[in-house]
Amino acid sequence: MNRDSDTIVAPATGRGGAIAVVRVSGGDAVGIVEGVFAARSRRPLSGAAGYTVHLGDIRDGAEIVDEVLVTVFRSPHSYTGEDAVEISCHGSPYIENRIVQLLISGGARAATPGEFTVRAFLAGKLDLAQAEAVADLIASSGRAQHSLAMKQLRGGVSSALAGLREELTELAALLELELDFSEEDVEFASRERMEALAVRIAGELDVLASSFTLGNAIREGVPVAIVGRPNAGKSTLLNALVGDDRAMTSEIAGTTRDRIEEMANIGGVGFRFIDTAGLRDTDDVLERMGIDRALEAAAKAHIVLLVVDASLDSAADIERQIAGLDLRPDQRLCVIVNKIDKVDNRPLPIFGYRYLKLSAKTGEHLDVLREWLSEAVDAGALEAGSAVVSGARHYEALMRAREALDRVSGGLSSGMPADLLAEEVREALHHLGLITGAVTSDDLLGTIFSKFCIGK
Amino acid sequence: MNRDSDTIVAPATGRGGAIAVVRVSGGDAVGIVEGVFAARSRRPLSGAAGYTVHLGDIRDGAEIVDEVLVTVFRSPHSYTGEDAVEISCHGSPYIENRIVQLLISGGARAATPGEFTVRAFLAGKLDLAQAEAVADLIASSGRAQHSLAMKQLRGGVSSALAGLREELTELAALLELELDFSEEDVEFASRERMEALAVRIAGELDVLASSFTLGNAIREGVPVAIVGRPNAGKSTLLNALVGDDRAMTSEIAGTTRDRIEEMANIGGVGFRFIDTAGLRDTDDVLERMGIDRALEAAAKAHIVLLVVDASLDSAADIERQIAGLDLRPDQRLCVIVNKIDKVDNRPLPIFGYRYLKLSAKTGEHLDVLREWLSEAVDAGALEAGSAVVSGARHYEALMRAREALDRVSGGLSSGMPADLLAEEVREALHHLGLITGAVTSDDLLGTIFSKFCIGK
Repeated sequence: MNRDSDTIVAPATGRGGAIAVVRVSGGDAVGIVEGVFAARSRRPLSGAAGYTVHLGDIRDGAEIVDEVLVTVFRSPHSYTGEDAVEISCHGSPYIENRIVQLLISGGARAATPGEFTVRAFLAGKLDLAQAEAVADLIASSGRAQHSLAMKQLRGGVSSALAGLREELTELAALLELELDFSEEDVEFASRERMEALAVRIAGELDVLASSFTLGNAIREGVPVAIVGRPNAGKSTLLNALVGDDRAMTSEIAGTTRDRIEEMANIGGVGFRFIDTAGLRDTDDVLERMGIDRALEAAAKAHIVLLVVDASLDSAADIERQIAGLDLRPDQRLCVIVNKIDKVDNRPLPIFGYRYLKLSAKTGEHLDVLREWLSEAVDAGALEAGSAVVSGARHYEALMRAREALDRVSGGLSSGMPADLLAEEVREALHHLGLITGAVTSDDLLGTIFSKFCIGK
Repeated sequence: MNRDSDTIVAPATGRGGAIAVVRVSGGDAVGIVEGVFAARSRRPLSGAAGYTVHLGDIRDGAEIVDEVLVTVFRSPHSYTGEDAVEISCHGSPYIENRIVQLLISGGARAATPGEFTVRAFLAGKLDLAQAEAVADLIASSGRAQHSLAMKQLRGGVSSALAGLREELTELAALLELELDFSEEDVEFASRERMEALAVRIAGELDVLASSFTLGNAIREGVPVAIVGRPNAGKSTLLNALVGDDRAMTSEIAGTTRDRIEEMANIGGVGFRFIDTAGLRDTDDVLERMGIDRALEAAAKAHIVLLVVDASLDSAADIERQIAGLDLRPDQRLCVIVNKIDKVDNRPLPIFGYRYLKLSAKTGEHLDVLREWLSEAVDAGALEAGSAVVSGARHYEALMRAREALDRVSGGLSSGMPADLLAEEVREALHHLGLITGAVTSDDLLGTIFSKFCIGK
């Protein structure tokens, strides 16, 4: 990562468009482009100010490779913080390659994945959590995912962490105070204050970490388990929710053993619907394995849709099925009273859980289910501005900081010496620093940026 | 095509890149973008000069959709000749769509395929042949194809046609002169001059039209037929020329009946290699059909490679095979004396045609064949600056102009009245005008631009 003084080049746009953009960044960016660019205005590019655009030809000797628009950025006012140039050419892979090759012949180097963003990070234009948000933003495919990435890019996580780091630094200062006055027996009063502070920080870490579950669900799709007896209409419901073209059929009772997952976007949120084996008592070993997997999927899901057959299941039956699912309080359950097309106005069994009557087959009232799903995911929390952690890397760092803080709390009450406690506080600071890159290593950077695309 | 006063918007780059560009053009382009753009500098976009870039946020109400770079172009200094804006955002289809939708809500309209180029044409920034070259340029995948499109974009065809139209106009003027003096019997002297002029123009049309064969071959790939006896090594040669990974195998003699085509780029020129059924006398009806197809492919090819087996075929044999091909003088033949790995230094049969000794199996001397193929296509003619017609539409218009001119020549010698002759000259002018769009119709424009991609 110490090659940041050279000039890098890469195509920055996807293939198949009317235009394409080639990106160049580094100390010689303007000079290298000038070597192959003939401006229509005949003015040298080297004299160009930042944020200006120039029409002209890219030339390979006498041959005109393309007529292009060249945009000049001047350090530090660019994405990378370095001098940079963007060349907008016709959208032909052949032309794009020729231009990249010409610039490499002229002294540039082909950029590695994410290298432009690495430079932005090294120049202090973005912290590490923000840099990761760039990759998330590019991959975002729904409103909730987009708004999560955008919040992180705008520093949502970073500013929450800045507050925590400040409090940890305060805690470290109190510990130093104790060390300074260790001969004078003033320890007890300040230990109380420190313990209160440690508890408060731990609480804030918990809030951040708990937002990971929602953040991760938004990134990966909110898991919704569809469970119920064989032939209750689970596969038909999945088909109806994800759209006919992606659907598979399942006509024979007890045949679905492996779980089947399909994504669907509802109200801007990605949902991962999981169709499972029908739940029933069975002696068949393979079917029993499928049922265990179904229960496992239900245990991991944020939302559980229990599909029951309106024409068959009684209230007592349904209550028994719900009890069998053994849900946690943080899981949302909705009983889907299916096949209402078959029962015309027969009164429905009454039970003490949220339910929706619908027909997965005809699609009747399916919109009510979609609306309920939308509301069941608290995307509103995102809009309201609460910082949300979405990356597994961030979650892990928060957990490690939390563990160090637990050791601080324990040490404070058990009378652990101040210097050992200070060590633990530094440990917590270290892990929080890894998230934003206040603390970093080449290995960590390499791992993060290798997931980026070339040109970013 | 009369909606050119409104403002159009479209994504202009392919999917899957780090950045994406959304293009806006029309009288309200700057105003519509300003409605959703908050510049970091807080300066209004409406005051921005052309060829300047502005950092800021695209906003949907309070929500930030993306941080973008906005480039402003001012009429007439833009691709379309209108006020135009390019928005460079993060390369997420979700973000791209949101921005396009916001601009449409703000009063823009989704552009139809090629509509930006249509506007450039209507504003006189490009003639029709040049506009078509833009599409060719984007589709170009090799050096020769690229240089052909670039030449056309730079006005190669257009300037050749401008000369011809001038000469036709001169011919029309001479005919008018004859009409004016028709009472005075000065007809004969001027008819001679006119006939000479008509012959010269016809000759120039022929040169242009004949360049179509090469131009078209470069666009579509130069057709090379690989013919020869069964088991001479034709399929192995095709495999070797196009690369192992695209190759199919053919081990049993006489099995290949349908022709197999594969493209390969050699020295910047695209070649379309056509593997054919082995040529031999046969009573098998299906095999005979395959052989007829092979001969047909050979008849249409620019280059014919006759593959013979160095260990089997005699000179007389080879001469007989060549005679059977019945080639035209404009076709290039090369006899491939194959399987030299099998004959170690045995003297080769001698005959009066160009031949190359090689082994398709080991790849020995294959580079010599590649070099010969490169030279066989006179790509040099392209570089040297001779105008080349590549589009079928252009060729057809040239042929129609040529036919009208033939009627002029015939009419001049047979004493056809000057007003009828003038009609034919106008016909020729009309057809040449169709190429550059000096003469045009909404239908023609619709047909041409419907082949463009959106955003161009």
